[in-house]
Amino acid sequence: MGVRELGLPARAASAGLPERVTIWEVGPRDGLQNEKAVVPLEVKLEFLDRLAGAGLTTLEATSFVHPKWVPQLADAADLLAGLVPRDGVRYPVLVPNARGLDRALESGVGDIAVFASATESFARRNLNSTVDEQFAMFEPVVTRARAAGMRVRGYLSMCFGDTWEGPVPVEQVAAVGRRLFELGCEQLSLGDTIGVATPGQVEELIDAYAAAGIGVDALAVHFHDTYGQALSNTLAALRRGVSTVDSSAGGLGGCPYAGSATGNLATEDLVWMLDGLGIAHGADLDALVATSVWMAGKLGRPSQSRVVQALSG
Amino acid sequence: MGVRELGLPARAASAGLPERVTIWEVGPRDGLQNEKAVVPLEVKLEFLDRLAGAGLTTLEATSFVHPKWVPQLADAADLLAGLVPRDGVRYPVLVPNARGLDRALESGVGDIAVFASATESFARRNLNSTVDEQFAMFEPVVTRARAAGMRVRGYLSMCFGDTWEGPVPVEQVAAVGRRLFELGCEQLSLGDTIGVATPGQVEELIDAYAAAGIGVDALAVHFHDTYGQALSNTLAALRRGVSTVDSSAGGLGGCPYAGSATGNLATEDLVWMLDGLGIAHGADLDALVATSVWMAGKLGRPSQSRVVQALSG
Repeated sequence: MGVRELGLPARAASAGLPERVTIWEVGPRDGLQNEKAVVPLEVKLEFLDRLAGAGLTTLEATSFVHPKWVPQLADAADLLAGLVPRDGVRYPVLVPNARGLDRALESGVGDIAVFASATESFARRNLNSTVDEQFAMFEPVVTRARAAGMRVRGYLSMCFGDTWEGPVPVEQVAAVGRRLFELGCEQLSLGDTIGVATPGQVEELIDAYAAAGIGVDALAVHFHDTYGQALSNTLAALRRGVSTVDSSAGGLGGCPYAGSATGNLATEDLVWMLDGLGIAHGADLDALVATSVWMAGKLGRPSQSRVVQALSG
Repeated sequence: MGVRELGLPARAASAGLPERVTIWEVGPRDGLQNEKAVVPLEVKLEFLDRLAGAGLTTLEATSFVHPKWVPQLADAADLLAGLVPRDGVRYPVLVPNARGLDRALESGVGDIAVFASATESFARRNLNSTVDEQFAMFEPVVTRARAAGMRVRGYLSMCFGDTWEGPVPVEQVAAVGRRLFELGCEQLSLGDTIGVATPGQVEELIDAYAAAGIGVDALAVHFHDTYGQALSNTLAALRRGVSTVDSSAGGLGGCPYAGSATGNLATEDLVWMLDGLGIAHGADLDALVATSVWMAGKLGRPSQSRVVQALSG
């Protein structure tokens, strides 16, 4: 018998954690956009359907970024046309700019995310703009989206350290993030883009948002496992009351062969911990593992999730 | 510039954690005993010297288990004869039985560990005995060791789940562990042998020991990363006041190619978190990474530590 048939992980609650967590599944967008292989449309559609079937309720489906930059998601409009949405499941789409919003509106999208940088260096390298310029660009996007009745999430990257600047002052991250709420975002996802965060920083940043009048219900966390810290940082965020956690099925987006694996927290590794803690989330671990094993077959390489590796080995 | 030159991880403390942690390095024993390759004696000696040079103060050096079972450590007596101990560094040795203790005494060892099972199934499979029989075997070993002035640590395996039994009642783990203290052990290392633990269980077990009169200063934790949970479980233990953590340089002991990687928590991944939290431990991360890169070269395969992968990629 395997550990699952034997009832593992065992359940034991821990005081001071949320009763329920929303898993914001980013595998189909953030994961596949960072895979070398371009996955065929029909595989993406089956992936989304399997993830919804496994009980996940928020699936970031694709991105309307220019195909020149992200050829992996060039089929965004076709994907949305072919998607058969399930009841009770949200399918947000990343929209980088006004042109992306036009395309999202044409596709009938009701739920978008915008992507901002907490630092000048990353704004310049990734968006070819300053932090102020990125807000000038986002303002009409978010205003139009809200006027069209859309829900808007803001991603904030480099919240815990920057590739070019090193440590990022917590006040700076809180101030830039606050501007996303002022634009009209309803939720902010705090991204550890390079995976360097540790638990004290996570607590400090959440506290800084609270001091700026932004409560934990409006925050999500988005950790990368580059230095093996994603799950312990998630635990720290849960202890501060955050109840929306970004993760990627099978750890999609990290390269298993590169020296520096920069993948997202794997959904299955998160679910193992949540199940053990008795925190409700609605997903079925075995169905998720089966989906990631299937997707690994499509990608022709093993899953990055330790849980998937262990349960399928 | 790399993230290290830029001062990452950034430091931010977290309330309620120990100021100082003792890293109990198990790579030379638990790590190498689970590697397929048999590492030459001179490489082992250099490994130990490099780890001490990196600032680690407790190095579990080898094991006097019968070479038939663990050929990787058949050179235990030669290793101890060749070892040049550093001031302030402990070199405990695993001793499985009376014959092992004889050999340890012949080698002038002053610091040993014994290995017990919390469950009947694992006692039968691993030690070919019952839980009671294992104590009958240990009693004269620990008594003789203590009479010879040795320090004795007890390992307790399957504390959070068992391969054959599934969940293990916390009262059972506390009761079996308590018997190791009654025998004369000064410290107990709580082992998650199959890597299934989650943070609530960790807290529950530590609380059960407290209720049995055994405080956190006498406890250590020993997590495996099979399901990606080792570091978050460590964080939970630190929050309960545990200040001795077992880990393995480079994550030695896990197989990077097997479907199910069952390695120990990597010392470098632990140190990244401790450094970020500002918890003192005495080791230098960059020296540890350099050591694990060197050892990976000797083993002919990449390190399992995410930090080593990221910093050497």
